[in-house]
Amino acid sequence: MPDRQRADARRNYTRIFAVAEEEVAARGADASLEQIARTAGVGSATVRRHFPTRQALLEAVSRQRIEALCVRARDLAGEGDSRNALLEWLSDVVAYCVSARGLAAVLAYDGAGAGPVHENACSAALEEAAGPLLHRAARDGAVASGVTVADLITLAVGIVLATEHHPGPAARADRLFRLAVAGLSPQG
Amino acid sequence: MPDRQRADARRNYTRIFAVAEEEVAARGADASLEQIARTAGVGSATVRRHFPTRQALLEAVSRQRIEALCVRARDLAGEGDSRNALLEWLSDVVAYCVSARGLAAVLAYDGAGAGPVHENACSAALEEAAGPLLHRAARDGAVASGVTVADLITLAVGIVLATEHHPGPAARADRLFRLAVAGLSPQG
Repeated sequence: MPDRQRADARRNYTRIFAVAEEEVAARGADASLEQIARTAGVGSATVRRHFPTRQALLEAVSRQRIEALCVRARDLAGEGDSRNALLEWLSDVVAYCVSARGLAAVLAYDGAGAGPVHENACSAALEEAAGPLLHRAARDGAVASGVTVADLITLAVGIVLATEHHPGPAARADRLFRLAVAGLSPQG
Repeated sequence: MPDRQRADARRNYTRIFAVAEEEVAARGADASLEQIARTAGVGSATVRRHFPTRQALLEAVSRQRIEALCVRARDLAGEGDSRNALLEWLSDVVAYCVSARGLAAVLAYDGAGAGPVHENACSAALEEAAGPLLHRAARDGAVASGVTVADLITLAVGIVLATEHHPGPAARADRLFRLAVAGLSPQG
């Protein structure tokens, strides 16, 4: 492909991606590939070449935030109190999912663990990045043994999904997250 | 209306309602009023007279289960250990939501507490029915003070929404519910 054509293709993708980000921000998991094509002024086939499915679209749009959460997990793994480090990271997962529509939906599908078909880079990357955080906290007795990163992410995602229609979703999600951390009814 | 016409209207509603129940069972919160009209062989306007919105449809289909959960709350309110009674009821809420698609969606919208527009009989009835269960458990120190029935229902609903794509949703939801009850990281 000559340089000129390659530059055109890149510009084209950048524009479609920007439209896709806006559509996902506005409609979350209900984002429409057809609407993206209409807004970007390209054919459906062009959009589907970049994003074959809605799940692929949500993943592409969420990738940067997933990467940021992975970096955050690695930064926190060596820092201070292991319980605080894990809870700070989970609280970031909740906050990211509240602010970025579509991210909770990606992780809910993804965390389903329905075998290789559902596996994807998003949840696998998060689980790998947060592993050391969880192990350190478990070693210090700050989380029950047997709890997995997938358990923690699924609970965080559930809290976000259940509060997304609330007029103040961030504060509501934060309250419920604290409640789940302390336990609805812990026994001494 | 003569008896004959009244009987026809009732039969008609019964049939549309049965189709609506099947559509909600199959598609949950994505249930389509148009599809119900097509399957029932009636016009969209007829379906919309019974269910003006999708939320109204989900509520109508969920009503019986909400009533069963209210009865269960009242039965448990006077029984045995207050902590066990509350947890048994919440566990029933999780199990009902897992088995009845659309119920979690109704409660998620409903629990949003976005003022009178979003208020409806479902969440209000559940909150009223479960009030005594919660108060008894709180009095016995089995739940943190300040926790509301709405908090508990929203957490239960979140767990169901986050696990609905899992191949074994009931077991997965139950595991996460137990984790939230004990606390992700309770402090002694």
